[in-house]
Amino acid sequence: MRFATYTAEGETFYGAVTDTGMIALNDACPQWATLYDVIAAGALTELEKLAADKPVSHTDFIYEMVLPNAPRILCVGVNFPDRNAEYKDGSAQPKYMSLFPRFASGFTGHGQNLVRPPENYTLDYEGEVAIVIGKGGRRISQDDAYDHIAALTLSNEGTIRDWVRHAKFNVTQGKNWDKSGAIGPWLVPFTDAKQLDDARILTRVNGEIRQDDVLSRMMFPIRREIEYISTFMTLQPGDIIITGTPTGAGARFDPPRYLKPGDVVEVEVEGIGTLRNGVEDEVTS
Amino acid sequence: MRFATYTAEGETFYGAVTDTGMIALNDACPQWATLYDVIAAGALTELEKLAADKPVSHTDFIYEMVLPNAPRILCVGVNFPDRNAEYKDGSAQPKYMSLFPRFASGFTGHGQNLVRPPENYTLDYEGEVAIVIGKGGRRISQDDAYDHIAALTLSNEGTIRDWVRHAKFNVTQGKNWDKSGAIGPWLVPFTDAKQLDDARILTRVNGEIRQDDVLSRMMFPIRREIEYISTFMTLQPGDIIITGTPTGAGARFDPPRYLKPGDVVEVEVEGIGTLRNGVEDEVTS
Repeated sequence: MRFATYTAEGETFYGAVTDTGMIALNDACPQWATLYDVIAAGALTELEKLAADKPVSHTDFIYEMVLPNAPRILCVGVNFPDRNAEYKDGSAQPKYMSLFPRFASGFTGHGQNLVRPPENYTLDYEGEVAIVIGKGGRRISQDDAYDHIAALTLSNEGTIRDWVRHAKFNVTQGKNWDKSGAIGPWLVPFTDAKQLDDARILTRVNGEIRQDDVLSRMMFPIRREIEYISTFMTLQPGDIIITGTPTGAGARFDPPRYLKPGDVVEVEVEGIGTLRNGVEDEVTS
Repeated sequence: MRFATYTAEGETFYGAVTDTGMIALNDACPQWATLYDVIAAGALTELEKLAADKPVSHTDFIYEMVLPNAPRILCVGVNFPDRNAEYKDGSAQPKYMSLFPRFASGFTGHGQNLVRPPENYTLDYEGEVAIVIGKGGRRISQDDAYDHIAALTLSNEGTIRDWVRHAKFNVTQGKNWDKSGAIGPWLVPFTDAKQLDDARILTRVNGEIRQDDVLSRMMFPIRREIEYISTFMTLQPGDIIITGTPTGAGARFDPPRYLKPGDVVEVEVEGIGTLRNGVEDEVTS
């Protein structure tokens, strides 16, 4: 079963995704205002049961960022071999992973357009698997790490590449443009290590494959990400970790191939889904 | 008037601070569950009126981080002259400010201890003024910037210095240790530009002045911070910006003077208050 946040008839719902439409679950679950609250309550399995015999509520809807009120989203940078080479600085494999937070406002939902701002046209894609923490903890061992994951989703961790280089120590301002990225389409409950360990991730732009790699090649595997992050902060249910992108972002090409209005980017992982987004120029007043 | 989040009798309240104790305001304002919700609703002035004729509710209480559920906290790095010199890399004044998010979990309240983790003993202080956004907006001009500030508070933007250098591009893991910093003691409504423009900030460790500067010397003034940040993200009421620390952190000394259990750090700005925190070693099981 898959769960999403979506808008229909001008209202935002969360619900179960079926082949014919959405099963709204808000009304059945007044104790959880949002899908984030479901995760925070550790109730995804319960939600699955509740949805089982319900009819479709909406066939006309728009996907929203899957957990739009998630307060903590951490991204892992430079996490595949060859990715370092994109930075052309000859650096060897680092000892520790690079981490940066992103605010939820930087992400839109599946099917919506990424927004290219008028200030800068270096909007770039980064296809990634995102995990949603279901069980909190501090100093979680790699052996236990997978027990702390509730669900999986996908991210286009879209970036305004020029602004990543504004400051010497941080990528913040290149990574937090409103709706420059996407998370979705939905949450898939995490029940089997193979969902991650055997996963292959593909990113296509207008049908052309730009990123193609397997998660097993990550320099810092997801188990290690959970171990490392939980060393310094207590992980909480609903925390999102965006686990790192393969080589092949637009910045890698010479000249770079940044996104432009009309482009369509797809991030696909078998067993999770395909996150598809167009690109539009921001309309400013 | 000043407003705080605090714990008394095992419950968390928000209220008005008086010289004799706290006036709890939750019950009078069921529409706002937390002080963050008050700010998000643009209701700080209304709260001020509501508190005016109420008696003190609690004289025995513990201050909490002033907005513990604030989802977006942005810190400005390296923002005073000479601060660059602390990095000893000969870099000139940068063109753009350095920015990094911190999660609320990294901050405790006034009067509580900062926590030194067993993994690393380079816990360092950074005294700063923090502003709380009261009116959202995108691409806010410097002229209008102050109109978007609801309130002021203080931060000890405590840092595990060694971990700031774990990754090449980001300081995330040195800046987000649980309770490594503090925000408080309270919110002071922002009503006059002089509250910021004439402010002098002092940080003391065990009574000894370590940081002493005036906000007017910031390389990136607060008006510019609001302008720059709102270029890439729509500011929202309740967003916190921690505006930058003067020279004089413990890392500056040779040898460095990091915080150790029993130390007391005070961050003081006249007109805002004094944020005081002890230091303790984390108790791990």
